[in-house]
Amino acid sequence: MNRLFNAVERDVFKDILRLRRDVRGNKFTQQPVPDDVIEQLIDAAMLAPSVGYSQPWQLVVIKSQAVKQKVYQSFCQKSKQEKELFPPDKQEQYQKFKLEGIIESPINIAVFYQRPDAPILGQTAMKETGKYSVVCAIQNMWLMARALNVGMGWVSILDPQVVKNAVNAPENSELIGYLCIGYVDEFLEQPELKTAGWQQQKSRQQTVFNDSF
Amino acid sequence: MNRLFNAVERDVFKDILRLRRDVRGNKFTQQPVPDDVIEQLIDAAMLAPSVGYSQPWQLVVIKSQAVKQKVYQSFCQKSKQEKELFPPDKQEQYQKFKLEGIIESPINIAVFYQRPDAPILGQTAMKETGKYSVVCAIQNMWLMARALNVGMGWVSILDPQVVKNAVNAPENSELIGYLCIGYVDEFLEQPELKTAGWQQQKSRQQTVFNDSF
Repeated sequence: MNRLFNAVERDVFKDILRLRRDVRGNKFTQQPVPDDVIEQLIDAAMLAPSVGYSQPWQLVVIKSQAVKQKVYQSFCQKSKQEKELFPPDKQEQYQKFKLEGIIESPINIAVFYQRPDAPILGQTAMKETGKYSVVCAIQNMWLMARALNVGMGWVSILDPQVVKNAVNAPENSELIGYLCIGYVDEFLEQPELKTAGWQQQKSRQQTVFNDSF
Repeated sequence: MNRLFNAVERDVFKDILRLRRDVRGNKFTQQPVPDDVIEQLIDAAMLAPSVGYSQPWQLVVIKSQAVKQKVYQSFCQKSKQEKELFPPDKQEQYQKFKLEGIIESPINIAVFYQRPDAPILGQTAMKETGKYSVVCAIQNMWLMARALNVGMGWVSILDPQVVKNAVNAPENSELIGYLCIGYVDEFLEQPELKTAGWQQQKSRQQTVFNDSF
């Protein structure tokens, strides 16, 4: 018989969804993250759906300060470049944001997509679905982290090639996400960029349609 | 004070992760899906992380038989093409799989990515992160569906342009996933393609690395 979930259990899951946050360096504490916690995050990733059961994910668990420093230097360069793309008033606001926690978090995980060398069922008409499977694994980890009362942040202001080089990734591996993981002093009530007024929350009217746009 | 989750609550979430399945047309029942269930799935999507708080998702809830038929025709064409890419013995196995539930499921949801018309914080160095935000929303829905004891399947054997035309999607909207949703007679214990031996389960050794490949 299949396991059925009840309303109380659903409310637990809704809390996990609602209280998950993108955590940055100003929230991480130095409390060590036990290997057992990392294992539970990896288990969650491995339970993700994958197109054609291809499981195209590769996870590099990073504790090395040398690797972290290389990645952090790439962040510094890329965030400087990104800032310039915004109008002056936004640039000032951008500068005040803490946008990563590469050094502050005890654990980083670089998540790669391994390009296939043969056709994958379900991936031939929409080639990007392999990468999407890896993203599903990351989202599983993010929610599992919150269930473990552990913070996670996704850093995308990076040159993927720098990260690839830093961990000796093979040619056919593509960086999907770079994750910072650690205990936190608090989980914010709301997304930081929402509170700061950087972007407004979208309405249902803007995002949900019936049968046609 | 932050909400902390305990071991019992984590076990509920682990069950949701472990028991989520990709559901196809041979499992869906005709039991109607209440609007309230659809709302809870949409709520879950809206709680996903998004790069720069851009919320770039667009969800088209489809009940129209005319739309479903157009999408189903695209599946038939694309799966015929895909099958030809495999060796003869695999082709025979491919033919036996039920790979979608477009018509059998009461609700379809086409999920799009709305390309931005201005720079997005966190998306300028890695352009695909906007699409990845939409995938996170889909994975939230998938897990929420399982928590609601509702089945969901992701169909990727489709021509995205056919789906765009069928729902009058604007030029700057890109199809990320096409979802089939409904009650089921059972959730399988294991992924179907694993049970069928189409692909083997990968080991930790193949997928997890420390500091370097």
